[in-house]
Amino acid sequence: MTTSQALPAVLAQIDADLDRSLERLFDLLRIQSISTDPAYTQQCRKAAQFVADDLAGMGFDASVRPTAGHPIVVGKAREAETGGRAPRVLFYGHYDVQPVDPVDLWEVPPFSPRIVTQDDGRRIIVARGACDDKGQVMTFVEACRAFKSVTGQLPLPITMMIEGEEECGSSHLFGFVQDHADELKLDLALVCDTSMWDPSTPMVTTSLRGLVYEEVRIACADRDLHSGLFGGAAQNPLRVLSHILGVMHDENGRVTIPGFYEGVHELPPDVRSDLASLHLAPEDFLGSVGLKVPAGEKDRMLIEQIATRPTAEINGMIGGYTGEGAKTVIPAQATAKVSFRLVGNQDPQKIRGAFHAFVRERLPADARVEFRSFAGAPATEVPFDHPALAKTRVALAAEWGKKAVTVGEGGSIPIVGDFKRVLGMDTIMVGFALDDDRVHSPNEKYDLTSFHKGMRSWARILAALAD
Amino acid sequence: MTTSQALPAVLAQIDADLDRSLERLFDLLRIQSISTDPAYTQQCRKAAQFVADDLAGMGFDASVRPTAGHPIVVGKAREAETGGRAPRVLFYGHYDVQPVDPVDLWEVPPFSPRIVTQDDGRRIIVARGACDDKGQVMTFVEACRAFKSVTGQLPLPITMMIEGEEECGSSHLFGFVQDHADELKLDLALVCDTSMWDPSTPMVTTSLRGLVYEEVRIACADRDLHSGLFGGAAQNPLRVLSHILGVMHDENGRVTIPGFYEGVHELPPDVRSDLASLHLAPEDFLGSVGLKVPAGEKDRMLIEQIATRPTAEINGMIGGYTGEGAKTVIPAQATAKVSFRLVGNQDPQKIRGAFHAFVRERLPADARVEFRSFAGAPATEVPFDHPALAKTRVALAAEWGKKAVTVGEGGSIPIVGDFKRVLGMDTIMVGFALDDDRVHSPNEKYDLTSFHKGMRSWARILAALAD
Repeated sequence: MTTSQALPAVLAQIDADLDRSLERLFDLLRIQSISTDPAYTQQCRKAAQFVADDLAGMGFDASVRPTAGHPIVVGKAREAETGGRAPRVLFYGHYDVQPVDPVDLWEVPPFSPRIVTQDDGRRIIVARGACDDKGQVMTFVEACRAFKSVTGQLPLPITMMIEGEEECGSSHLFGFVQDHADELKLDLALVCDTSMWDPSTPMVTTSLRGLVYEEVRIACADRDLHSGLFGGAAQNPLRVLSHILGVMHDENGRVTIPGFYEGVHELPPDVRSDLASLHLAPEDFLGSVGLKVPAGEKDRMLIEQIATRPTAEINGMIGGYTGEGAKTVIPAQATAKVSFRLVGNQDPQKIRGAFHAFVRERLPADARVEFRSFAGAPATEVPFDHPALAKTRVALAAEWGKKAVTVGEGGSIPIVGDFKRVLGMDTIMVGFALDDDRVHSPNEKYDLTSFHKGMRSWARILAALAD
Repeated sequence: MTTSQALPAVLAQIDADLDRSLERLFDLLRIQSISTDPAYTQQCRKAAQFVADDLAGMGFDASVRPTAGHPIVVGKAREAETGGRAPRVLFYGHYDVQPVDPVDLWEVPPFSPRIVTQDDGRRIIVARGACDDKGQVMTFVEACRAFKSVTGQLPLPITMMIEGEEECGSSHLFGFVQDHADELKLDLALVCDTSMWDPSTPMVTTSLRGLVYEEVRIACADRDLHSGLFGGAAQNPLRVLSHILGVMHDENGRVTIPGFYEGVHELPPDVRSDLASLHLAPEDFLGSVGLKVPAGEKDRMLIEQIATRPTAEINGMIGGYTGEGAKTVIPAQATAKVSFRLVGNQDPQKIRGAFHAFVRERLPADARVEFRSFAGAPATEVPFDHPALAKTRVALAAEWGKKAVTVGEGGSIPIVGDFKRVLGMDTIMVGFALDDDRVHSPNEKYDLTSFHKGMRSWARILAALAD
């Protein structure tokens, strides 16, 4: 029986087994695997072991791999389990969760998961990690389990890599991936840590913006000066910094750094038209945070501004006297943190260099500049013509009865870039989170529909990929 | 005997009495009258009483007047003492001093004054307050004492007002001056709290720049935003603030706020030529703080930039993430402190209004602004043709053997503005401080020459004014 012939029975199995799937998810949600707090180190280990045991029970060759931080669970489908099917996929997720503070704001204890019916009739799973990322990971695990249950085999040669430090910087993941490239380098990566477009519209995240983050420090006099005595004659680093950063955007919201848009591609017309048809309205997206008017490039749709266009932002700035009241000082130095979100083929090194040149060219006499470089990662994109993308979209459309949206995400998930650069793999990101899931906040939830149809979606995607 | 006939004998008396003048100064320097620290409240009171007793001993009707803070000493020459001479003058100074931290850096204990011979042979008085302002005040007091000693009378109808809060904001002085306008409103004010041009060139400070100090806060979203999710679409208050403050000066260093230069006069040609002849070199003035190139209006001499031209400075700026490392935030708000030094007839209210308009006109959508206003005081100028100014210059030239420079000072001494506005009096500012006096720093000093020739200078000035 092919994977795809088995699909109807697998979907029926998922429906029939929903209560037991929830019990397994709840067992995982009860483990207090908060990765940032050393007090929960044993709980993180316990969660890793739970996942490894669960995978082992389904026919994975699973182990808890130690790192200098929290362990990483790796489960590899035994060859006998999959009969040499293709493609070989790497599924990535994480078992760690965010802290629960402020705990007083939780309406249920954060590690006592339960199903609640909302006023609008939606049934939700409430717990820390219900969505991010235990609930999402389990949609994939349960889809695999249903295949195993119906066919006696896993649907594809799947390797699972479930880490425990996503919520505290994934410090040891990159090294782990490098060190284990031979076993992790497969044909395609799958990640379930993203959102739906809206509660009824499935979404594939096809690109992630890259990031260049710089600190720029302007120094002038060798000490703070009195603005009465020196004002008018001494160069002021806050004036210099404002003057330079103040012209980083033109009146149309375009970044003025020469060469900045090199490597930025225009979207294919059908993709752009798909984006336009989403009708993302400023009042919906910006209204929730008290804003109204998109501040990016004026000739771009809002959805482009946040997803597929590069940006320059001042993330922080400090200099001189910032306390209460007035102090007539000309500061010796001033500092800003400036970051760039990258898309397409923008080269982080070139962007960094172009920014440095932009600043240096505008430095007046008596002003010196120092830079410190932090993150630098290019954008990650799944090619629009990737066969797995098309199959995934068809599978999602079949489950949700609606065309699956493909959208770029504004933020960065560094490991996805690493999959491409280190392992040569593209990543298909599908997730079932909703905007109101309160991820990282009290009363985190995951819609029962997200969980149930999420499992069914993965079953369909795995079947489609196996064809 | 007229005041002026008595002058040679008075000068001789000053020379003969130098050691005892120093003893009296040292007694005052030993009192730890640090006004900012409540622990020294009693010491401030002691210094006030010391000054009052000293004045009473010389024929002043002197008293220690309480305020809500440290007391103010007022000493009025009894009419019998001065025989109805003119002009009636108000001398202002202060008996309080700055804290002495860091005390480890003092080479002598700060309140144990002594005379030290420098490597270059100059003899200096080292102590907190040696210059600012106890030493300077005593040059005037000792000149009066010498007249009294030689002629049996004070040289003019002098009222002394010596306050104790100059180093902590003179909070109660303005109210005191308003409340006692009837006794303080005389013909001319004298202040000894300024510098020489250089160790051999006396100086009269003929103008003080005014000050407008504003805090400007730009607010956009109602919370801090993630720059991945919102970057490109959400207005960034740091971008707004940089953009606005970055165009406050043009490429020639001129302030671009419309109407800013209204009320700024060109100097009379002879005054400008006097200033030019001082040859203030950037390497001398700016070199001491690690700078080289005057940053003000390119078509103005350095001395104009710091003394007679108005300025706009960003004194502080803060917003977003300013800690170590990188945080990808778009801040909800950003704040800057901006101040303006005013000259001539620039109107603080108009400048404030013009700045507010300048900001508001450049506010993009989704940005709101709030202002907080701090100091606002116009510039103070002694008319170039004031008779007392001419007499003072002649007297100083006679003592120092060199033309006395008239220069505007960049900073503000608010009480001098109050003398003009509240009491209708012009102020002649003459002082004998030198650039290396380490005022407000450890090892504060006053050259013995400043003290000695300072006393002689005041004797000559008083004689000249009395003519």
